[in-house]
Amino acid sequence: MLGTFTFHNPTKLYFGEDALDGLYEELPKYGKTVQLIYGGGSVKKNGIYDAVVNILRDCGKTIVEDGGVMPNPTTEKLYEGIRIARENKVDLLLAVGGGSCCDYAKAVSVSVHCDEDPWDKYFARYEDPTCPIVPVGCVLTMAGTGSEMNGGSVITNPAQKMKIGKVFDERVNPRFSILNPKFTYSLPMRQTVAGVYDIFNHICEQYFSGTDDNVSDALSEALMRSVVNASRIVISEPENYEARSNIMWAATWALNNLIGCGKTEDWMVHMLGQAVGAYTDATHGLTLAAVSLPYYRLVAPYGLPKFVRFAKEVWRVDPAGKTDEEIADEGLCAMHAWMREIGVAVTLHDLGATEDMIEGIADATILMEGTGYHTLTRDEVVQILKESL
Amino acid sequence: MLGTFTFHNPTKLYFGEDALDGLYEELPKYGKTVQLIYGGGSVKKNGIYDAVVNILRDCGKTIVEDGGVMPNPTTEKLYEGIRIARENKVDLLLAVGGGSCCDYAKAVSVSVHCDEDPWDKYFARYEDPTCPIVPVGCVLTMAGTGSEMNGGSVITNPAQKMKIGKVFDERVNPRFSILNPKFTYSLPMRQTVAGVYDIFNHICEQYFSGTDDNVSDALSEALMRSVVNASRIVISEPENYEARSNIMWAATWALNNLIGCGKTEDWMVHMLGQAVGAYTDATHGLTLAAVSLPYYRLVAPYGLPKFVRFAKEVWRVDPAGKTDEEIADEGLCAMHAWMREIGVAVTLHDLGATEDMIEGIADATILMEGTGYHTLTRDEVVQILKESL
Repeated sequence: MLGTFTFHNPTKLYFGEDALDGLYEELPKYGKTVQLIYGGGSVKKNGIYDAVVNILRDCGKTIVEDGGVMPNPTTEKLYEGIRIARENKVDLLLAVGGGSCCDYAKAVSVSVHCDEDPWDKYFARYEDPTCPIVPVGCVLTMAGTGSEMNGGSVITNPAQKMKIGKVFDERVNPRFSILNPKFTYSLPMRQTVAGVYDIFNHICEQYFSGTDDNVSDALSEALMRSVVNASRIVISEPENYEARSNIMWAATWALNNLIGCGKTEDWMVHMLGQAVGAYTDATHGLTLAAVSLPYYRLVAPYGLPKFVRFAKEVWRVDPAGKTDEEIADEGLCAMHAWMREIGVAVTLHDLGATEDMIEGIADATILMEGTGYHTLTRDEVVQILKESL
Repeated sequence: MLGTFTFHNPTKLYFGEDALDGLYEELPKYGKTVQLIYGGGSVKKNGIYDAVVNILRDCGKTIVEDGGVMPNPTTEKLYEGIRIARENKVDLLLAVGGGSCCDYAKAVSVSVHCDEDPWDKYFARYEDPTCPIVPVGCVLTMAGTGSEMNGGSVITNPAQKMKIGKVFDERVNPRFSILNPKFTYSLPMRQTVAGVYDIFNHICEQYFSGTDDNVSDALSEALMRSVVNASRIVISEPENYEARSNIMWAATWALNNLIGCGKTEDWMVHMLGQAVGAYTDATHGLTLAAVSLPYYRLVAPYGLPKFVRFAKEVWRVDPAGKTDEEIADEGLCAMHAWMREIGVAVTLHDLGATEDMIEGIADATILMEGTGYHTLTRDEVVQILKESL
């Protein structure tokens, strides 16, 4: 059964090898000054930066540089971005990069005209914007976060050792996003598979809650199978367009509200992963990979019918002659085998965490109540983190 | 592989038992005068008309009546709707009904400020609007056409015996749609299952073209399975909310551009069905049901791998020890069995067509070239129509 909900996602997507040409259609809709947001400089090496700059110049834009966005964008960087936007009275924030750049652009967009401290207002107090929002556009260079078609933004406060994701409403969505699967060819494979696992986990977070038969869960299973199939190809063929395009498109729909429509969601793996990220600065998708199987093994008995369905629909486990517990376990084993195959079966040790961090990470973990199949106790959080080491 | 495409669907959807309350959020965004569009009066019997009128009055709107939209809206009715809109300078076209009312509202919306004849411009010449478009809202009372979240409009010209669907861009989409699954409880079962088959066929039209592995086809299979499962429940339990909600939500996503993204599509069954509709005025979904199996049996050899996939993924046909032809055939047989089960295994005779109409219907059938697995000859059209009798 689908509960009550609204769905409204006005982001315009340009997808394909020539998607960047969409900038010619979009840029004239905005004023002259564009804040060009990017990360550590890989876009300068692979030519995407130059291609974007050329189009911005063709369209008569004034470019204001804002590079150096880190994988886990910090409050300090956010304050810098806000200052740049204010000083230059920018008309458009154009993020060229992965989810970090896009998340950061959205955090800047709601802060430029906001008098309060954005960390306090949006991330700590989880309030909604009450000020004008500067429009955001996105040229995506990594598939994973889904940030290109949602209102989500994750910011890290290093001083407080907190990494918090805020889901803004559709006013904060990118107005447009450019998705060219070829832009992801040159990503290091570790980044690619971290993105793949991020996608897969976004789907899991929405899927592993509730027991009704509904369209949202059926769509989730389709997306999971697509991502699994495509990831198995891409690890040996990084320039396989079919696989890259399926991963990129699945990423967008894994986290643009569709598959969560009308159902409860969990998001506990993200709470655990974000706490790990705040302590280790590790790649987001890998933090999720490290903690997820211990978490799912712990909660599976509380949501057994769904884990049985997951085993059969996503992993094609043959249920003949098996108990529900055996079917569910076989599904999670198949998931683990796939994680090993694509290289995301990592431990917290691999990500730089040590045993003495466990209590701190547990403290930084936001406990979700009543969202998934089982509300974790703090002891269970510690247990999961220890099993993930 | 996903080809090049854009996706932009700005319609806001309110879904659930209280979805009508969404009108309180939407109506204040538009001017005072609302053209209230509805069909043959069933909305007056089931109370939906009164509920909408009360909210319109609460919001201080002036209501301009425009009832009597027929199942296949005609050019004559369209001209009347345009006249009403012009004389009253309406600010919003609010369709309360099924796909016919919503299609009609969209046709009016692009015609009010258009100097040319809308049939000639949009349907015969298939041009795009160049005039201001009056906004459309929709309160949906039947699941099927997907008109609530797309720019499509189908209009019938009885004098020319032509029924043509025009796909407008997102400017013509309803600004908002209200989807309350309970509003479909009182539909006659024949209308319900006609809608179900319409949904299923919308998915087939996009699915049965191309052979690549892609996210769009995986999502299509998920929607098909959801619709089949839910339809089997609703035929014996018309007030099963779970089934009604899944049918309604699947209908929206079956035809809002998502599952056609980046792939070729067919639409030949619609061309055949619309020609039948122009001759018989039969319910749209049933015309599709009458012609589709003979069509799919004819084209299956040309797209065998996809029909094999259809059999395995949608109908769970066990492929062990069978040839591809046998698997594909078993899939179509399973589809036929389901059509019989829900009561849509109809013939053209059942819909009022007679053998002497065959040549005329064949003449009215627009032949799609190179869209599906096989481009039909006129002789093959006649053959399909005869097999459908």
